[in-house]
Parts: sequence; C-alpha cells; structure tokens
Amino acid sequence: MSESAILLLHSRDRKGLVAAIHNFLFEHGGNILHADQHQDAELGLFFMRVEWSLRDFDLDEEQFNHIFARLAEASEFTWQVNFGNRKIPIAIMVSKYQHCLLDLLYRHQIGELRCNIALVIGNHDDARPLADFYGVPFHHIPVLSGGKEEAERRQFDLMRQYGVELVVLARYMQVLSADFLMRCRGRVINVHHSFLPAFVGAKPYHAAYERGVKLIGATSHYVTQVLDEGPIIEQDVTRVSHRDRLEDLISKGRDLEKIVLSRAVRWHLEHRILCYGNKTVVFD
Amino acid sequence: MSESAILLLHSRDRKGLVAAIHNFLFEHGGNILHADQHQDAELGLFFMRVEWSLRDFDLDEEQFNHIFARLAEASEFTWQVNFGNRKIPIAIMVSKYQHCLLDLLYRHQIGELRCNIALVIGNHDDARPLADFYGVPFHHIPVLSGGKEEAERRQFDLMRQYGVELVVLARYMQVLSADFLMRCRGRVINVHHSFLPAFVGAKPYHAAYERGVKLIGATSHYVTQVLDEGPIIEQDVTRVSHRDRLEDLISKGRDLEKIVLSRAVRWHLEHRILCYGNKTVVFD
Amino acid sequence: MSESAILLLHSRDRKGLVAAIHNFLFEHGGNILHADQHQDAELGLFFMRVEWSLRDFDLDEEQFNHIFARLAEASEFTWQVNFGNRKIPIAIMVSKYQHCLLDLLYRHQIGELRCNIALVIGNHDDARPLADFYGVPFHHIPVLSGGKEEAERRQFDLMRQYGVELVVLARYMQVLSADFLMRCRGRVINVHHSFLPAFVGAKPYHAAYERGVKLIGATSHYVTQVLDEGPIIEQDVTRVSHRDRLEDLISKGRDLEKIVLSRAVRWHLEHRILCYGNKTVVFD
Amino acid sequence: MSESAILLLHSRDRKGLVAAIHNFLFEHGGNILHADQHQDAELGLFFMRVEWSLRDFDLDEEQFNHIFARLAEASEFTWQVNFGNRKIPIAIMVSKYQHCLLDLLYRHQIGELRCNIALVIGNHDDARPLADFYGVPFHHIPVLSGGKEEAERRQFDLMRQYGVELVVLARYMQVLSADFLMRCRGRVINVHHSFLPAFVGAKPYHAAYERGVKLIGATSHYVTQVLDEGPIIEQDVTRVSHRDRLEDLISKGRDLEKIVLSRAVRWHLEHRILCYGNKTVVFD
Repeated sequence: MSESAILLLHSRDRKGLVAAIHNFLFEHGGNILHADQHQDAELGLFFMRVEWSLRDFDLDEEQFNHIFARLAEASEFTWQVNFGNRKIPIAIMVSKYQHCLLDLLYRHQIGELRCNIALVIGNHDDARPLADFYGVPFHHIPVLSGGKEEAERRQFDLMRQYGVELVVLARYMQVLSADFLMRCRGRVINVHHSFLPAFVGAKPYHAAYERGVKLIGATSHYVTQVLDEGPIIEQDVTRVSHRDRLEDLISKGRDLEKIVLSRAVRWHLEHRILCYGNKTVVFD
Repeated sequence: MSESAILLLHSRDRKGLVAAIHNFLFEHGGNILHADQHQDAELGLFFMRVEWSLRDFDLDEEQFNHIFARLAEASEFTWQVNFGNRKIPIAIMVSKYQHCLLDLLYRHQIGELRCNIALVIGNHDDARPLADFYGVPFHHIPVLSGGKEEAERRQFDLMRQYGVELVVLARYMQVLSADFLMRCRGRVINVHHSFLPAFVGAKPYHAAYERGVKLIGATSHYVTQVLDEGPIIEQDVTRVSHRDRLEDLISKGRDLEKIVLSRAVRWHLEHRILCYGNKTVVFD
Repeated sequence: MSESAILLLHSRDRKGLVAAIHNFLFEHGGNILHADQHQDAELGLFFMRVEWSLRDFDLDEEQFNHIFARLAEASEFTWQVNFGNRKIPIAIMVSKYQHCLLDLLYRHQIGELRCNIALVIGNHDDARPLADFYGVPFHHIPVLSGGKEEAERRQFDLMRQYGVELVVLARYMQVLSADFLMRCRGRVINVHHSFLPAFVGAKPYHAAYERGVKLIGATSHYVTQVLDEGPIIEQDVTRVSHRDRLEDLISKGRDLEKIVLSRAVRWHLEHRILCYGNKTVVFD
Repeated sequence: MSESAILLLHSRDRKGLVAAIHNFLFEHGGNILHADQHQDAELGLFFMRVEWSLRDFDLDEEQFNHIFARLAEASEFTWQVNFGNRKIPIAIMVSKYQHCLLDLLYRHQIGELRCNIALVIGNHDDARPLADFYGVPFHHIPVLSGGKEEAERRQFDLMRQYGVELVVLARYMQVLSADFLMRCRGRVINVHHSFLPAFVGAKPYHAAYERGVKLIGATSHYVTQVLDEGPIIEQDVTRVSHRDRLEDLISKGRDLEKIVLSRAVRWHLEHRILCYGNKTVVFD
C-alpha cells in the first residue's frame, strides 16, 4: 500500500469550501481515497476528513503546509494534516490492573494500532514483566502522598524525552493535575469504567451494583480538567442480571474497558476524531 | 395447555426451605414446570419462583392459601401465589405520545401479554381513536394546574371500579403523587427515556445530545416516591453518532422505550419479578 | 426546513470526479448539507451521496437533469437525483401477520417515513381494518393455487395505477415471480426472519430452534430472483437461550423484523442505499 | 469462600425428582447455594444444576457417589458431580494466531478460569514465547502431510500424561480425526469465526465479506465429527458496514472470537453446560 495523507479540518460552514479543497488536492495530483464530511446545522459548524494517496501528489509536507496555511487563513478554518503514515509515539500509563495494557500491547504487536508505543509508565511496578515481554521501556514512578507534582514532572520529562504525542491512561488510578493536562494539550485518552454520565468518580461498579442496573458500561474519553467530563469518544455496554455479583460486574467490565479504550486509541491514531465543544465527531 | 400456578417467595436464607416447598408440592400432586432460585449471599436473602401444573394438584387456591400461610409463618418467608392463569386487569396511562400505548395494545391483541387491558386513561384526548380501535375503554382526565389531587382521585376511582392491579405509565408525562403511589401499593411501572441513573428528570434526550454520548438508552422501573429512583426492571441501549440530531435520538429512543416497557409489563404479568431493597430479581 | 436535493452516483473511480461535482453544485449556488463518499479499492468503484439546499440553487430539476446527463456521459458514471423532498408512493404487501404493517403505518403517521403509503395489498383480508384505521386503501387479492400469474397481473395493475415506486413485503408469504420482480425494476424490499445467509427458505425460526443457536436474527434485503439471496440492507439479532421455546423465538423475532424492515424502508426513502454486485452501500 | 460441590443431571421428566434431590442434600447437611432447573416440555426432558456448600455436608465424594449411584439407578437419571472446586487440567491447542491463547492465559492468570492450564500444543512453534511467559509447558507437534495420525497420537499421549480433561481449540487450524475426538469423549471446545450455521467451513470472513452481511459473528461449540455442526455454546456478533474491508472484518472478528471462546471455557469449567441432542443448556 502506498503512503497517504490525512487532513482534518473544521470551520464555520462555508459554501464552496469542499469544492475548494477537492480542487486543491486534484490540481496537485492527489487521488482521494476516503472523504467524509459532517455539518452541525444548529451550531453552524462544518467538519471534514480527507485521505488521499501521495503517489502522484506533487507537494511534500512542507510545501503543503505552506500553501494550505494561506488557504486556511483566507477561508478561516482550523486544520491538521498527517503525511505519510508516520507512527505517532505514545505513552501508556498504568497502575496495577493490566488488562487494558496487555490488550494495547498485543493489538500493537499484530498491527492494529498505527503507533510506536514509546514507553509504559506505572505508579506501581507490577506491569514491568509485561512491558519487558513486549520489548517496551517501563518506568516505575511512584506517586507518594504529597509527591504528585514531583511525579508528574518526572512523567512529563520522560514523555518529552520520548517525543510522546498521545498519552493513554490504561486504568491509571491517579487523577492528573490541570497543569499536567495543559502541557499535554488535550492529547490524553482515559477509560472510565461506567456508562458516563452515570456513575462518575470512584468505584463505579460498586455504585452500579448498588443501583441494580441491568446493563453496565465503559467509556473512553479525552481527559479535561473536570473529572469524567471530557469529550466522549466511545461507549459500550453489556448485560448483567441479579445473578451477577460485584466481582462478576468487574470481570464483565474488563472486556468492555479493553474494547472502548482500544477503539478510541485506534481512531485517534487514524486521525478520525475531531473535538468541538465537549463532543467528538468520529469519522468511521 | 393445562392451567398452572406460580409461587414467588423470598426469605432469610434457610436450609431446607427449598426441600420443604418441593415436598409440599410433590405431596399434593403438583408437577413442577419451572423452578428458579436465587440467593444474595451478601444480604443473606433467598428468592424463589416455582411454576407447577394444576392438572393433578389436589388443592384449590383457598386450600393452598390456608395451608401455605401456616407454612410461611413457621418458616418466616414472604410469598404470593397466582392460580390458574388468571388475566390481571391493568390500566395504561398516557399523554400525547402513543408509540408505547400502541405497542402494548398490539402485543395484547396477539397474545403476548397475559392480562386484561381494562382501560386507558389520558390526560389528553389524543389516544382515544387508538383505544377505540382496539376496543378498550378510554377516559380523558385532564390534569389542570392545581387540579392534580382531583384528577388523581378520579383516576383512582376508575382503577378501583375496573379492579386494576397494575398501572402502566406509557410515556405519561405527569408526576404521580406519593399518596396515589401508596394507594397503588407499588404496582406502577414507568418507562424513563434514558439509561438510568444517567439523565434523570426532564428532557433526557436533550441532555444526552448535549453531553455527546455514543449510546442512548431507556429504562423501565417500578415507580417510587423519588422520581426515577425506583427498582430497575429492564434497560436497553442503541448506538448514536455525531450524525444523529436531537430528533434522531428521539426517534431511535422510541424503539427502545417500546421494548423495555413491554418487557417489564410482560415479566410482571408472568410473575417473574421480585423487588428487594431498591433492586429487582427477574427470573427469566 | 427548506427543500433539498439528493444525488446518488457510482462510477469507476476517477480522479477529479468529486471536485467536478462539488464545483458544479457550488457554481449553481447549491449549499452542501451532507456529503459522503465510499471507494471499493478492490473493485475500483466509487460511490457518492450529496445532499444540498435548493434555496439558492439556480437550476430546476429539468435543467439539472439536462446538464448532468451530459456531465455523466463525459465522466461515465451512473446517477439518480431526487429533487425537493417529493414523497415517493409505496405499496405494502402483507399476508396474515400484521406487526410489520402496523409498525410501518405508525412510523409513517408520526413522520418517520418520507413517503406516501399509496395502498396495502393483502393475499388475505385480515389487515383491512388496520389499513382502514390509518386511512390507506386496502386491496384483497387472493393468490389461489395456479392463480399467481393472474394475481400478480392485478397487483401490478394497481401499482401502476397508484404510481408506486417501491414495494415493501411486510411478511408477505408468497414468492414473487421473476417477471413481476423485473417489472418492479429492483425496487422490492423484503424482510426475512433469519440472520441471512443462515436459515434461508421456509420456517427459519423452526430451523434456528432445531439448531440450538444462541442468537436469532432478521434481515431486510432487496428481492432478486434467487430467494433470500438479494443484496442485504440491514440485519439485527437478539439473544435466546435454552429457556426460549419456539414460540418465544417467534415472538422475539417480531421485534427484530419490525426494526430491520423499517430501517431499510427509511434508508431507501432517504436515498441512502446504493446497490453494487450483490451488496449495498448504506450511507448513514 | 468455603468449598462447594456441583451436581449436573438430566432425566426423563419425573415428578418428585427435585424434591428427592433437595431432601437428600438437606438430610446430609448440604446448604444449597444455587439451583437451576430446566424442562424441555416437547422432548420430556428435565435438566438440573445444584451447587451446595460442603461446610456442614456429612458425605465425602466417595460416599456421595456410592449413595447417589443407587438413587440414580432407581430414578433413571444421568448425572455428574464435581466436589471441592478441584481445578480441571486443560490443554490449549493453537496454530499461528495467538489472540485467543493470550486471552485465555491472561484470564487464567487473574483468576477468571477455574482450571489448571496443563499445556499448550502448537502445530507451529510461534506461540512458544507466550506460553513461556505465562509459565505453561509448550509442545510443538507439527502436522505434516500424511502425518496427522502420528501427530494425534503424540498429542493424545501428552494429554493423557498431563491428565487433561478438556481440550480447547484456540484457533487451531487442523481438523481433528473422528478417532481423536472419540478418545476425548466430547470434551473439545472450538471457536468458529462465523455466526453458525452461516459460513461453515474455511474462510468464513471472506465468505461474509462476499455476501455483504451487516453483522459478523463467532461461535463456540463442542466439537463433533461433523465439522462446525456440534452443539453451540455461545455466539456473539458485531456490526460491519460497507466501509469495512476484509481485514477489518478479521480484526473485529478477533474480539468476538476471544469473547465467545472464553465464555464457553468458563462455563464448562463452572459445570454450567449440559448437552442434549445437538443443543446445549447453559445455566447462567
């Protein structure tokens, strides 16, 4: 498969924008592989994802950026482009539970995730053997009482060192500070073990068990400063009954968590997600 | 199919109770058709549903009640029995939306619901033609500002007149008073158009749309005095995306509401549901 | 909401086609509301659906057709256009089971289906009261042994008389002849009560019950001359267990049939479906 | 948690059998933890699963077997019992794909599967590092052309050596001989990567892609001598669209395969499954 480029943009809805972009790509030899648009009529917003082949495309990334920046200025849209199937470096943060970490490592190994898992950071040391088995550097950074600031400084230094562009919280059980999140510029994906907005906060399976729900869920979302309130990327649920004890909910929930987190990571890496307000557009 | 009887009971878990009940039924010629038990180990509670054929059973309902009351006293369990596939009289309450009402009327017509739909009560008159078509008495009882007490008095008088044993709120948009609910002795089933406990209260589809969830849901539950907090009977969800406008959520939600409400009504009528605390056991 | 037009096209994949169409619409004042494309890389096929506002569009349907026909000739694509939210006249064919018919009639009544239900044809008379209730002409055309040709002639005459453009088989239990289907030019949608290609042919619930499956399904599809082999539009499934008797499968299946048939009809009416080979593209 | 025993039985339906068994357990001090019954009215068959605490039970396994064998003879039922949460030794057979193997090894590690994974047998050597990582003996037994008989002899010798009581085919790509299966006495669970009975045989994802289905599935089942025709234990499906290429179906299918296979293994190990005819009763 030859290489391709992906453009994501959003804008105040404007007549002619789609035609202009398609013309631009066509004139430079770009054969469109996928194109998807969405319009939020209520908010007057327009979203677009275009993927085109680079085989006959006559611009390189630098040239594209130069020309497109001017186009964007004239038409007032926000955009990002990814050239040539570059593998994004990501960090996975983990505590004691390893099911999501293992799931991501295996999916990466068989080629489902177009990224480079640069490192795993654990506030416990438990996941080291797993990271070792998959040949990924593991860093143990305990988060002691009163030591979050220092721990986050070490975490962020590592991420900068590895050039990390996406942080995945794979059941990482610490709340990240507003400062840390700001430095990550919105590129942190978390999995919450409930069907948000139900059961925000700690111990959602316990709360679900107490409430007697008939379905439990899991939610992957971008992390914002308000806990469990960030833009939702994916959700899924599974059926439970009065026969399920709390430990059965937790066990069934693990399968949900793996699925919704890995989908979110995959879609992010394939540049399928656009955030606006507190929502996401996910181009499938 | 010959007639059968269904016994529902719950108790502090006691060794020997199951054996005692099976012995009792066996000795009186009752051939067990279905039996299901559940034990909540944490709370030390035991639940049981037994259905047996009345063909060779040598007790009638009165005799059964007499003997069983003494058995229950000795063993300290709570019980209810239903003899002979009697069709329970139910009332359906409705406002303007008619999808749940139509769904229940049709399911009743083709034999899915083992009940007698005694009457339909609407606080608007819109559903009258539908009730007429299915040959069910329709009563229009407007609920005017300040007139809820009077309206509920008329509603309850009708229910008493028709011998109603279950009230189904088929998207009835009025909140019932604590007094009315108490007089119905817990036998009121509602459908809430969200995945409870997410989006309690008014306009849940609007709230779901605002939050940007990726699944919407509906919940059927017994009505208690705290709005949307009663024991959950059934829930279901369906997928939505950024392409779905608010009106699409409402449209997709209608299908969920019909399904979860009709299942709850059916299970109640088949004596499959036991409430304890704020939860339900649903024997399937 | 102002009126819009929808264009569906497919073609051998050609560079520049998307740009050309967007330019064409832009130049004539068409503001694009939705656009979706799909490319089958393996077969080298390209599919497109565009919906644009007619408010400032400077071509009427005749002019559009005239110009677009030439464009299509030059670029070798196949296309169809629908101007101005015209309501397509449809016929529903039915036998004795009425759940799908009722579901379609109700959805139409509340505005979910953008069509005119021109008539209902039954090979039994059972559905007449329902059609009457919803104010739709009902025609009883029995299909006697050896009389299918004559019956189909009468059916087709009625459809021509009413200008029918889509035939919906709502659990119609007769096999239509190749001749009849040819005259309908592929515009016949059926619901089959299994998860195709499992359990083709008669009595699929019986076969599913015998096989001991853990999920049952339903499938809506365009009808072709080979029974149950036409392009699949939509499928859905629901869980069953050893507790479900044959009649429970049939009952659960009814809910599936309604859902998958109504979705197929809705998507057809919204011009979301393109057939190619024996598959469908469904633009959502 | 104290130890428990589980009894599975089926019989021609007989009045009094349930009472007799409950009496027997009660008289010997067995406190019933779970009990579930099922009756196939059509076939006149009765199925039962009972789990009781061994804390105050006054019979050991030998005594139980002795007494119960006489009871079974008198009442003509078939039964099996499992005393004391003994961990069953199982073998996992694998080829090149490792997602199901990894899933089972991890679930075992965290306590979801009540068994001892005695060994992994691969007809390729690929899975050795994974087995090593989880500390499970790995045996590479190639199956050469014309060498199946010899390979199966070696496989079966290993299983006998390890005392294996359940064989799990975790995407093992060889067909087992009737002789091998007979020697395993029905205790072989396979996962087939389609929604059976659709797409039996080789390359089901390819066939599903060709047919243009809108859902793909996976099925776990006991292996019988007729390929893909054994009693179904569990099935699940996921949605696909025209956007999914063959490789997407394969990728989505992996998640289904892991789920349906692990559920089947878990239920088998918890003695929840009874086979009759070509169906299963799964007590949940």
